Amino acid sequence: MKIKVLSRTDLVEILELTKVIDGVEAVYKAKAEGNVAAWPLVEHHFGNGAVADIRSGGAFGDISIHGAKLLNNFPENAKNNLPVFTGVLMAFDSNTGLPMGIMDASYITSLRTGAAAAIGTAALARPDSKTLLLVGAGRQSIYLLGATLLKMPQIEKVLVADTFSPDNGIQYVQTIKERLKNELSVDCPSTKFEFAENLRDAASRSDIILTITRSTEPLIMKEWLKPGTHLSCIGADMVGKEEIDPEIFSIARSFADDAIQCCNVGEMEIPAKKGIISADSICGEIGEVLVGTKEGRVEASDITVFDATGLAALDLVTAKIALQMSKTKKIGTVVEI
Amino acid sequence: MKIKVLSRTDLVEILELTKVIDGVEAVYKAKAEGNVAAWPLVEHHFGNGAVADIRSGGAFGDISIHGAKLLNNFPENAKNNLPVFTGVLMAFDSNTGLPMGIMDASYITSLRTGAAAAIGTAALARPDSKTLLLVGAGRQSIYLLGATLLKMPQIEKVLVADTFSPDNGIQYVQTIKERLKNELSVDCPSTKFEFAENLRDAASRSDIILTITRSTEPLIMKEWLKPGTHLSCIGADMVGKEEIDPEIFSIARSFADDAIQCCNVGEMEIPAKKGIISADSICGEIGEVLVGTKEGRVEASDITVFDATGLAALDLVTAKIALQMSKTKKIGTVVEI
Repeated sequence: MKIKVLSRTDLVEILELTKVIDGVEAVYKAKAEGNVAAWPLVEHHFGNGAVADIRSGGAFGDISIHGAKLLNNFPENAKNNLPVFTGVLMAFDSNTGLPMGIMDASYITSLRTGAAAAIGTAALARPDSKTLLLVGAGRQSIYLLGATLLKMPQIEKVLVADTFSPDNGIQYVQTIKERLKNELSVDCPSTKFEFAENLRDAASRSDIILTITRSTEPLIMKEWLKPGTHLSCIGADMVGKEEIDPEIFSIARSFADDAIQCCNVGEMEIPAKKGIISADSICGEIGEVLVGTKEGRVEASDITVFDATGLAALDLVTAKIALQMSKTKKIGTVVEI
Repeated sequence: MKIKVLSRTDLVEILELTKVIDGVEAVYKAKAEGNVAAWPLVEHHFGNGAVADIRSGGAFGDISIHGAKLLNNFPENAKNNLPVFTGVLMAFDSNTGLPMGIMDASYITSLRTGAAAAIGTAALARPDSKTLLLVGAGRQSIYLLGATLLKMPQIEKVLVADTFSPDNGIQYVQTIKERLKNELSVDCPSTKFEFAENLRDAASRSDIILTITRSTEPLIMKEWLKPGTHLSCIGADMVGKEEIDPEIFSIARSFADDAIQCCNVGEMEIPAKKGIISADSICGEIGEVLVGTKEGRVEASDITVFDATGLAALDLVTAKIALQMSKTKKIGTVVEI
């Protein structure tokens, strides 16, 4: 049996962020229609900060793909000049069970996470939003920013905060416009990028806040927010991670990518443990907003929150797009398995 | 990053059953020493009898490998001349998280399952066992038989029962000696193979019973067994499957590959639900017998049972052996990921 193998280099060449956004949106909608499965998440800690996590599941119906991805994060590798963050995804046709492809999982994870943040933001933020605060200027942040600017071209100003490394944040705003264009084909000549020295001040000036850090304590406090703010919280995807004040959930209309998973390992984990929210008490899942079975933002003054913890189906739909593009562009390696 | 891809054809060429037996034994021992992880098992039913299952985990310490395999069983594929049983395994170095290889998972599953049955049997059966009853003559059975004959060359007679298709059983005994030699390099010129027309009679004459069927009801009853019989139950690996009378567990010394998993999805599932046994009340795990921390068979007259549901670490150690052999024999395809 022949399958396609796609390397990270192949994926960078063939995947377009706009197509990934469409795919992720289709999966969110399929989830609201009962056509997405998220199977038990695996997380293993090796010591020395090293973690492996496995997400598996599928999107059925029209999409019809299932599989698993395993990501490794081994921080100590940096000392030995080895890649810290690696992963592999395997995808199968859900009509036949036959393997479709094997590919690097790290780039796909980055793109689909960016797409997820952008879709949640576009669905819940005020349409007249002009100022976006990006909290976190690490490896992953460019994908959130690029996808959100594609979905919301009305954004005029981006404030960038990096509480872990302000120097990195300062450098980031100097190069990000060029990087968005070169790395993601996102051209935003008139958007202004500013380093946010004072996080409280920046948060209180923003219509949209995207969080993408490895924080384990709140960075954004409830009393800093102006009415009508939307927050997409993306960094918290494992037990113990937290980016925003749990009390924000007591006043916000809150949405999850997967209600149960978010209350177990997402930004909702700690508020859920504190009894502020539960999988049943939140307003709904983002897919329900997209298909119209749940109401997203009701008033312009609502505070809205989108918590995304990641679903294998998002990776898999991105893998499917990559496999289709790899045929068109004749890229990748065909191997016998 | 470069990784090795091994096809089923490659694996058939490079994997030797004796080496797989050694690897599986090493993993069982590592498990008893706390160096094996079995992560949550995933099982998804698609309808039309199609199932996908994912096993993931790792063996650490000296072995140092982790990963996942996804197996698909799509019976309807047969109608369309497509393979029914397919799967892919991905293996990672647990010291660095870096991917080591991707390979077909179906042949590895077959070999390591055969090895598991043989190791449990050799550890628990009476050393003077002469007659073996093989219940089930399907695709998987040759691996159990081959591995057990390697581990227990003292076996003189093999009785083969196929309650689902007696005709298949009759044909099986005519060709199995040749197949063992050709497919698995197991040469047993003096072993006698007989079709077992009457299962009760065959069971009551046997020292060892291996079950490897898709049965969901008991095939072997308690009152059929003579004192001193050992049973290795391999077929039951999902909820609802059952091959032997639950009451056998009330009189037997019972051992699991993984106590909790066996009580959830193995031959022990139904006895556990009936309150006959529990993960705490069984005599131990097979690895504990192998390292000597738990006593296996005590008396020659004991009835012993080994229930194996399969651990990802067994597949992974087999994958590691395959990757080592593929270097020596210069087999497989190196790809960029």
